[in-house]
Amino acid sequence: MTVKKANQKEMLKAPYHLFLGCSDAELSIKTSRGIAQWNPDACIGEIAGGKSTLSIGLPKLSVKEAAEAGAKTFVIGLANAGGFVNPEWEPYILQAIEAGMDIASGLHRRLDEIASIKTAAEKYGVTLHDVRHGYTDLKTGNGVKRTGKRILSVGTDCSVGKMFTTLAIAEEMKKQGFDADFKATGQTGVMIVGSGICIDAVVADFISGGIEELSPDNAADHWDIIEGQGSLFNPAFAGVSLGLLHGSQADIIVMCHEANREHIKGLPHMAVPDIEDCINLNLKCASLTNPDVKLGGISLNCRNLSAGEGARQRAELEAKFGVPCFDPMITGAKSFVEAL
Amino acid sequence: MTVKKANQKEMLKAPYHLFLGCSDAELSIKTSRGIAQWNPDACIGEIAGGKSTLSIGLPKLSVKEAAEAGAKTFVIGLANAGGFVNPEWEPYILQAIEAGMDIASGLHRRLDEIASIKTAAEKYGVTLHDVRHGYTDLKTGNGVKRTGKRILSVGTDCSVGKMFTTLAIAEEMKKQGFDADFKATGQTGVMIVGSGICIDAVVADFISGGIEELSPDNAADHWDIIEGQGSLFNPAFAGVSLGLLHGSQADIIVMCHEANREHIKGLPHMAVPDIEDCINLNLKCASLTNPDVKLGGISLNCRNLSAGEGARQRAELEAKFGVPCFDPMITGAKSFVEAL
Repeated sequence: MTVKKANQKEMLKAPYHLFLGCSDAELSIKTSRGIAQWNPDACIGEIAGGKSTLSIGLPKLSVKEAAEAGAKTFVIGLANAGGFVNPEWEPYILQAIEAGMDIASGLHRRLDEIASIKTAAEKYGVTLHDVRHGYTDLKTGNGVKRTGKRILSVGTDCSVGKMFTTLAIAEEMKKQGFDADFKATGQTGVMIVGSGICIDAVVADFISGGIEELSPDNAADHWDIIEGQGSLFNPAFAGVSLGLLHGSQADIIVMCHEANREHIKGLPHMAVPDIEDCINLNLKCASLTNPDVKLGGISLNCRNLSAGEGARQRAELEAKFGVPCFDPMITGAKSFVEAL
Repeated sequence: MTVKKANQKEMLKAPYHLFLGCSDAELSIKTSRGIAQWNPDACIGEIAGGKSTLSIGLPKLSVKEAAEAGAKTFVIGLANAGGFVNPEWEPYILQAIEAGMDIASGLHRRLDEIASIKTAAEKYGVTLHDVRHGYTDLKTGNGVKRTGKRILSVGTDCSVGKMFTTLAIAEEMKKQGFDADFKATGQTGVMIVGSGICIDAVVADFISGGIEELSPDNAADHWDIIEGQGSLFNPAFAGVSLGLLHGSQADIIVMCHEANREHIKGLPHMAVPDIEDCINLNLKCASLTNPDVKLGGISLNCRNLSAGEGARQRAELEAKFGVPCFDPMITGAKSFVEAL
């Protein structure tokens, strides 16, 4: 298994050929959609297997056509319950290996657990990238202040829009002339930019150390825009969120929240925290490694609101907290970046 | 590799033969000292290899003598920088395997990485217990309230006495007639009681879920006394501490602090937190999964104080926080348990 460095450049080689799986489960291909939306230049084509009719609007290419067009990595751009390689996917993966492509997977189970895939990869000399595995060379965190500036997205829960928020901020900052890099901490983020670290998949001792490595010393006017994970109020994943907060030494946090979410994702007995309480706890904890941390904005995911109600709630939060409130899908991150 | 369950009983078979290594580094054998102090009935003997003159006061037995006396597990009761099997140790480990003993190790590197050890274990049918590895079957946490009661030790830093505090509390509670179990979350604790989970060694996603499994539903008047790890104020390990706090659903936390510690362990640039600040943040975070959590006591490690100064500081903390303040090494945990 390849040993990966959190701060390795170009872990995954572009361009990608995106594999959408063999079922019609629209929600399963969120990873492919994310890659195609945020890094379209890296995507050469898509392929749905079996009887699947799914598409994300890229050129529909066979594995052979994609390889001929120059595809370097075959990306398993979907997730399934259990996180394993479905036997239906195997022929497509093997074809891609035979065509000389690396394989990238964000599944829980490793690609090389499948003997046919392991053997073929060795035979054709391609790399199997399990982005959730292989970070075996990390150090524990030390909290020593690093140079450069950092923005971290935090949240009231999982899946409220932390990745989209940081991607939108990084894109807008580049547009406005900032020297900014998006730093991926989850599997979709890692596949979008081709590098990063799946921080929830490292050994617990190395959460903050992994983030310190992901976002090292940099020029004084450089900004790392770090993708957050989980929430300090999610009873499953708060440990990851706290290590991420300490490791990032954020100068600025952006609080991400989904309007009208009824309970913590997957846990109907757990209430979504009050946003003010969540901001205060994040600032309190973040101050351990950066006493100057500030709230820079609120990213309100308004997908469950009417346009008018969304605008009203954003205005209300801006007035209450004195920082820009935006929805990266509706308003973009312009107001946030202009206020920096 | 054996797949371990966090709540597995008798993961390690007693009695143990304790291996003290081949050097005279007194600090390296803290694990052996801990096992001999807290579970003397499990210890059949000790053996120092090479030119080592170390002893922890157990009968000095050769591997052969220990096996004849009934030893079931050869415990590598020491740590070294790097956490690997020193080649000098190999002959002793191989002798133990040939004598039919299981091997227990808390090292970072796995025993079966050494080909001779792996081969011998297979040949003689003994088990290699890497207590920092093999928790591959965990679930993510869910925060659902469990029956039974729980005490968790928390701290201002690592290595302030959290394990000793919880062992002393569990022992005192049993003496006073409580139905109480010590639950180990670190390698020495796991070796002392022969079961538990090294929570800093699990994948980050499973910290709180691992603790939920370690301390499942129990009788209403049963107490799990859970060993804490790290500190919410340690920039390397706070993620582990928070997951542990959420997973344990502690009814009562005990704050552990070392008097006169000058800075966070190994990090001279990080200040030890104010104890009140640390209590408040622990109670705030713990309330997510147990809104009724309370501070039950303060365990003050007074090893750097004179007897008089220690007594004065303990009295001061008792007056300030209104809970018993004790040093498990000096006063025992009686005052704490009586106040329950």
